[in-house]
Amino acid sequence: MTTTVSQKQILDALSKVNDPELHRSLTDLKMVRDVVIHAGKVEVTIALTVSNCPLKSQIEEDVRAAITALPEVKQVSVKLISMTDQERAALFGEPKEGAAAPYNHIQNVVAVMSGKGGVGKSLVTGLLAAALSKKGYRVGILDADITGPSIPMLLGLHGPVEPGPVGLRPLQSRGGLKVMSMNFLLTNEDQPVIWRGPLIGKAITQLWGDVMWGDLDYLLVDLPPGTSDAALSTMQSLPVKGVVMVTTPQGLSAMIVRKAVHMTQAVGVPILGVVENMAYFICPDTGKQHFIFGPSHATEITLAASAPLMAQLPIDPNVAALCDAGHVEDVKLTEIEGLIEAFVKAAPVQAERQHG
Amino acid sequence: MTTTVSQKQILDALSKVNDPELHRSLTDLKMVRDVVIHAGKVEVTIALTVSNCPLKSQIEEDVRAAITALPEVKQVSVKLISMTDQERAALFGEPKEGAAAPYNHIQNVVAVMSGKGGVGKSLVTGLLAAALSKKGYRVGILDADITGPSIPMLLGLHGPVEPGPVGLRPLQSRGGLKVMSMNFLLTNEDQPVIWRGPLIGKAITQLWGDVMWGDLDYLLVDLPPGTSDAALSTMQSLPVKGVVMVTTPQGLSAMIVRKAVHMTQAVGVPILGVVENMAYFICPDTGKQHFIFGPSHATEITLAASAPLMAQLPIDPNVAALCDAGHVEDVKLTEIEGLIEAFVKAAPVQAERQHG
Repeated sequence: MTTTVSQKQILDALSKVNDPELHRSLTDLKMVRDVVIHAGKVEVTIALTVSNCPLKSQIEEDVRAAITALPEVKQVSVKLISMTDQERAALFGEPKEGAAAPYNHIQNVVAVMSGKGGVGKSLVTGLLAAALSKKGYRVGILDADITGPSIPMLLGLHGPVEPGPVGLRPLQSRGGLKVMSMNFLLTNEDQPVIWRGPLIGKAITQLWGDVMWGDLDYLLVDLPPGTSDAALSTMQSLPVKGVVMVTTPQGLSAMIVRKAVHMTQAVGVPILGVVENMAYFICPDTGKQHFIFGPSHATEITLAASAPLMAQLPIDPNVAALCDAGHVEDVKLTEIEGLIEAFVKAAPVQAERQHG
Repeated sequence: MTTTVSQKQILDALSKVNDPELHRSLTDLKMVRDVVIHAGKVEVTIALTVSNCPLKSQIEEDVRAAITALPEVKQVSVKLISMTDQERAALFGEPKEGAAAPYNHIQNVVAVMSGKGGVGKSLVTGLLAAALSKKGYRVGILDADITGPSIPMLLGLHGPVEPGPVGLRPLQSRGGLKVMSMNFLLTNEDQPVIWRGPLIGKAITQLWGDVMWGDLDYLLVDLPPGTSDAALSTMQSLPVKGVVMVTTPQGLSAMIVRKAVHMTQAVGVPILGVVENMAYFICPDTGKQHFIFGPSHATEITLAASAPLMAQLPIDPNVAALCDAGHVEDVKLTEIEGLIEAFVKAAPVQAERQHG
């Protein structure tokens, strides 16, 4: 009597294969459809949750490996189809606000803030994210500057975004950062978002709860200037662990940054550290430092914030050029190493790093 | 028979003397109280609308001159008292929102905007205002950046503001600019304004309608970054004649400024011109121009805005230092002359200039 692999064995094997985004097994997700066994040849049909699933080749590979590992299996063929809207709704419920949140596991949410505009919050966010990613951390950026988003350009990313089974999929930067910005949702990036505050606040909670961030060590939230809706919604609706406060040497910045410091204190979110940007310019001809925006006010900010100075970054035309070209991940500044060290110390993550 | 000046003659004379703020006659405003005539000596009692009236010596002088000009008057004495709250309420009604607006006569309201933060909107506002004032125009600045006000520091102005009879009196800069900012209304300037959008919008309409701006040729409105509540409320609730759009060379700025350009087009407010700030830095050692923030994107903004380039301003450490010291009115840049010329051409005023 010829022994053969049973349907039960195959389903058991597939019950141990997880959807890589949703972290639930293929059988649990009702993704396994037909299983045909014929003389050691196994044909399975897998219904992807969405047709555009970017991880479909990984799923196919995992299915093939799990079945191949069973005894008596000589050949495996995997057919991929995708669920209908009805099947998907039966599984996840009708699309609703915040649906992605239960599937996301984010260790540390850190907001990058200033109060003042144009001090380089987005640059600091981009530099931090890229350097953390290079160290092996899983990093996302939520661009909370709904009306003046800088993050997409710094990373050279453009919409549209694709819907996933339980929410929108963030875009992925060259360096592997998961990124979501209001700009990806506009039909034209020059389109202004002319919204009053309540909609701004709502947009931010949607960029949080309707996006499939997945597993992240750090989610950096790039806040717009001011202490109004965007900052309030972020600090009140997201589990913000702390704030990195960005300033520049100008006394003018210092005054407004102090307001932001007092806001974080009022809402009870700790300040992890202070970054002074545009601290000086080194003339390429003479090598001399020019304090273009005046002497540093960083000390008074660190005192007001009761937080350490994480870095002082120069004005560097190469940095501006890389940012305009969408290559913030390629910026090399010696100051970044100290910044990352201070950051990771202030916001440690518990899990093992996955790579790096 | 000795002829003598009559009470009627005196009241007639005083009916031609106007309160310099309210532009209504002293008799109409019920400010003239006792009139005592005794052998060519006239004693009048004038009730000021508020006790802190900064123009009281001017009123006293005008009253004295009007009575002295009458025949048979040998000596005039003016006694100043102030109205009670009840008298003031009987005259102007109970204090209410927008009460100052009917007394204000402002020829041109121009908003200074960018969309992007930190590009120098407040600097451009201050430079424009100071230079217009030096040319003899009557100029006010409404600081619409409620959560991140820069204008008070640039002009070295601090609250509190004093109440006038029909609204708050703006502060006056050394150069004679009338200035109002949320910062003047805070008990401590480091205090953040943690308000959601609807309150931000309301604050701006109050800085417009509850402030005794008086007669102005130009009221410049310094907008915060973004295209949300502050910009919307300003453009929808104030009679904005046009917008001066501020940008910097960075491509990043250009993208966000284009959003602001499209917003003004969406709400139907014309763009009067574009100012590029931080265009270059001249190294003090070599005299060489450094394009720190990259090559200019001004042309593409002027094309998108269908508006002329009004000026390209350099990065100048002296300017930053003057701004931090509250002396923006003392900034000297050769580029300002062209800026003012273009500005006045784009937003001409009809009345005769009062001085200069």
